[in-house]
Amino acid sequence: MLKTQITDLLSIRYPIFQGGMAWIADGTLAAAVSEGGGLGIISAMNADGAYLRGQIALARRLTDRPFGVNIMLMSPYADEVAQIAAEEGVAVVTTGAGSPVRFMPAWTDAGIRVIPVVASVSMAVMCARAGAAAVIAEGQESGGHIGEATTMALVPQVVDAVDIPVLAAGGIADGRGLAAALMLGAQGVQMGTRFLAAAECGVHPNYKLMVLGAADTSTIVTGRRFGGSACRQIKNSFSRNFSKFEFSADATAEAVAERGVGALRRAALDGDTKEGCFLAGQIAGLVKKEQPAAEILREVAEQAESLLKGTTQWIV
Amino acid sequence: MLKTQITDLLSIRYPIFQGGMAWIADGTLAAAVSEGGGLGIISAMNADGAYLRGQIALARRLTDRPFGVNIMLMSPYADEVAQIAAEEGVAVVTTGAGSPVRFMPAWTDAGIRVIPVVASVSMAVMCARAGAAAVIAEGQESGGHIGEATTMALVPQVVDAVDIPVLAAGGIADGRGLAAALMLGAQGVQMGTRFLAAAECGVHPNYKLMVLGAADTSTIVTGRRFGGSACRQIKNSFSRNFSKFEFSADATAEAVAERGVGALRRAALDGDTKEGCFLAGQIAGLVKKEQPAAEILREVAEQAESLLKGTTQWIV
Repeated sequence: MLKTQITDLLSIRYPIFQGGMAWIADGTLAAAVSEGGGLGIISAMNADGAYLRGQIALARRLTDRPFGVNIMLMSPYADEVAQIAAEEGVAVVTTGAGSPVRFMPAWTDAGIRVIPVVASVSMAVMCARAGAAAVIAEGQESGGHIGEATTMALVPQVVDAVDIPVLAAGGIADGRGLAAALMLGAQGVQMGTRFLAAAECGVHPNYKLMVLGAADTSTIVTGRRFGGSACRQIKNSFSRNFSKFEFSADATAEAVAERGVGALRRAALDGDTKEGCFLAGQIAGLVKKEQPAAEILREVAEQAESLLKGTTQWIV
Repeated sequence: MLKTQITDLLSIRYPIFQGGMAWIADGTLAAAVSEGGGLGIISAMNADGAYLRGQIALARRLTDRPFGVNIMLMSPYADEVAQIAAEEGVAVVTTGAGSPVRFMPAWTDAGIRVIPVVASVSMAVMCARAGAAAVIAEGQESGGHIGEATTMALVPQVVDAVDIPVLAAGGIADGRGLAAALMLGAQGVQMGTRFLAAAECGVHPNYKLMVLGAADTSTIVTGRRFGGSACRQIKNSFSRNFSKFEFSADATAEAVAERGVGALRRAALDGDTKEGCFLAGQIAGLVKKEQPAAEILREVAEQAESLLKGTTQWIV
């Protein structure tokens, strides 16, 4: 059995979070991950409070174990869903796409462990000062909205800068990644792409096929030209056209943003392999099959444990 | 003491290569690294054969231990320096910026271990088939010319694809990075940025100050617009102007390439902090002081060894 500051802090079996992927991470997936011994996370995405309440209720019907909610801070419903997370008293709130500082008193007063996703040392330090229980240092190899620093570079720099536990995210899909993250100073990991292929993940089957078919060079980052909205996804017709438009002479920040509207929904719900935007990390190339979430967790943890036990092979 | 397939293969004390940085990695630095127990590497850069012969002779006066030569395959002198490497019978040739396949028979006939730097699984497989003794899987967090995949994502995917030893490069500057690389399946690492701050590194003092002053967000990648020349460097006036020009309406691939000419020389030789191009990796934020190469090697290896011995803390 693996034991870290994160398994202790949250009383979970494995130091593994499931990323709060918008349009994908619902109550069913989160419950399956938590029931399997990790920390499942429901994405509040851009939906209203009723959606989040429904997903929390669903997860609670499926598991007695702790789970989390991810709040996208640029959601138009951010205030509403932040309030609901506090009222519902979920075990953990993770945050992305901005600074969670203004919501933190309400969450910590409700006894919630706040664990923001951060892409830089400065954001990690700010969150630690504001009362975060831990931070998730997410490298740009992750799927979805990303920063610039990679996991290998970011994690040790964040570990050196804060006194709270750090989880690593980005580029991690197996026990090698988990063991490597621990060596970098992390106390756990968050995986998104691997859980896209969980049996309990209700995303359109074509999305899973895109992930299972990906290689090391299958992702591309769009949204870099105008800053602030860099987004990693699997290369397809949508991403090619988006990139071409983004760097065309008449592109504006507004026109580029407009072009992205609905694309994630077309991927996750409709399985539109041409016009959908299939967010996934560079580690998709390691994800080879659909498996129950509990099996993914066990496999990752057992591989990491075996590697950690075998380190004497390197020493003479 | 650490022992891996790479320490065995090359009869070196530490599984640590020093990156073959153009304008920086000369015979003096390479000899200091090899004398310290790692594998020092001389960059043949864009110079002619006489330069390389001189640096090899210099290194041989300074150390009896094995060292390597890095051949930049797009150098106008690539054929000449490739031939000289074979004639001189250096222990190792590393290659970058292209496919080394056409030179490999000459090198392997000369008993040289050929260890190409690769940025993708497909290039790793091609090099393995052509007779490479190992490959260096280099993530895009590295300084200088880079690919797309990050170290965390690339290394395990390359390890799964080839039967030869893999070294990890990119984002590694201390023992945490080395231990993490071993967990990912690598048999050693290559570090560039950390050795920029070696006492024996003859780069202009301003270059070292730029590295020592860097934080996690201090680098930027230029050269992505027209493909094939993405280049990570420390943000300064040069990089800002270059980026702005690159994405301007009238930029062409030729004009962009032209604008880069001489910039690395202005950094490494002249220490021109405004108009020089200071290549460095994202891990520069971890590099805090100038130290002799031997001390760097010992410190990195001892920290990794300590982490590898301490893994039982994670297991209950």
